[in-house]
Amino acid sequence: MLLPPRLQQLLAALRCLPGIGPKSAQRMALHLLERDRDGAERLSAALLAALEGVGSCRRCRMFAESELCTVCASGARDHGMVCVVETPADVVAIEESAGWRGAYFVLLGRLSPLDGVGPEEIGIPLLEERLAGGGLRELVIATSVTVEGEATAAFLAALARRHSVPATRIAHGVPMGGELEFVDAGTLSHALSARVSMAGDR
Amino acid sequence: MLLPPRLQQLLAALRCLPGIGPKSAQRMALHLLERDRDGAERLSAALLAALEGVGSCRRCRMFAESELCTVCASGARDHGMVCVVETPADVVAIEESAGWRGAYFVLLGRLSPLDGVGPEEIGIPLLEERLAGGGLRELVIATSVTVEGEATAAFLAALARRHSVPATRIAHGVPMGGELEFVDAGTLSHALSARVSMAGDR
Repeated sequence: MLLPPRLQQLLAALRCLPGIGPKSAQRMALHLLERDRDGAERLSAALLAALEGVGSCRRCRMFAESELCTVCASGARDHGMVCVVETPADVVAIEESAGWRGAYFVLLGRLSPLDGVGPEEIGIPLLEERLAGGGLRELVIATSVTVEGEATAAFLAALARRHSVPATRIAHGVPMGGELEFVDAGTLSHALSARVSMAGDR
Repeated sequence: MLLPPRLQQLLAALRCLPGIGPKSAQRMALHLLERDRDGAERLSAALLAALEGVGSCRRCRMFAESELCTVCASGARDHGMVCVVETPADVVAIEESAGWRGAYFVLLGRLSPLDGVGPEEIGIPLLEERLAGGGLRELVIATSVTVEGEATAAFLAALARRHSVPATRIAHGVPMGGELEFVDAGTLSHALSARVSMAGDR
């Protein structure tokens, strides 16, 4: 092969990035070495710094550099309302929507017994501590609408019930601004069967 | 902002990769920290190793870990035929086509006086040394078909002429397997005006 070994190793290492195939990896490696060696150095250092410095919040498992993440450490948030999500990316998406002033709990996965992912792996003991500790007024379950996400939601609802904490599920249906003809059949049939009264009080 | 500072720095550093916007950078950073910390560590090390270990071949300016690149060091190549290209990616593409058994010269750019890229910047003194050294039977010019690429090609042809080395330009025209209706107008009109006789000896 034509490229020197270290360049080939860089190509292989770039493949760990999601969505990067051999062609993109080559384009990236050649670009960095040819035109942006400073950027490559910064990237190498930033990776190391993040690996060393970024851990998990000990309350909600969100990425954090100190014991608590910014949300858990904030006095401006309502810590009596906890939204349970699967991944840190979900937290980022909800924060960007600016529609939630409560706290979070990040499962870092979802129940999937066949893959060996049980309650331990998704941090249930930590969540249970928080449910048992009192002060929680609502557990909002925002796991994904997949078979495993729904199973996880059912498991979480039962857990909340045992601790007498009301559990809710985020609404599913036709997206805002969504044209009916482009909405998939599953979403549409759920939206129809889960229709709500327009009378008012709900 | 929600994400811890080092994670944000990683997001910013990932933007130095070509084609990576804020959304992809976030997906990459969260993926690495959540699911592939080993991969991130390997990537960081591979970047550093490549930066430190990969330099330029002192004969053709291709990436190399030692003084000479694999092509220049090879005894199986015809060093009397030199193909001039703009970037290392061009060398990789030609090698993959397996249609060239000569050597290369990589300009690492193309003449662009307005951007301050003159003959010095594209390694012309090094190429001239090779032209003057004798033993070159042909200079194949494979710069891109852009205004600057063509200007560079004309400059290289004049240079070769001064050293009495025959210069050729790679053929341009309709791609093999290309349907005429999908070929752009510029390529098509060039292909028509540069038509070759089918009689035989070209």
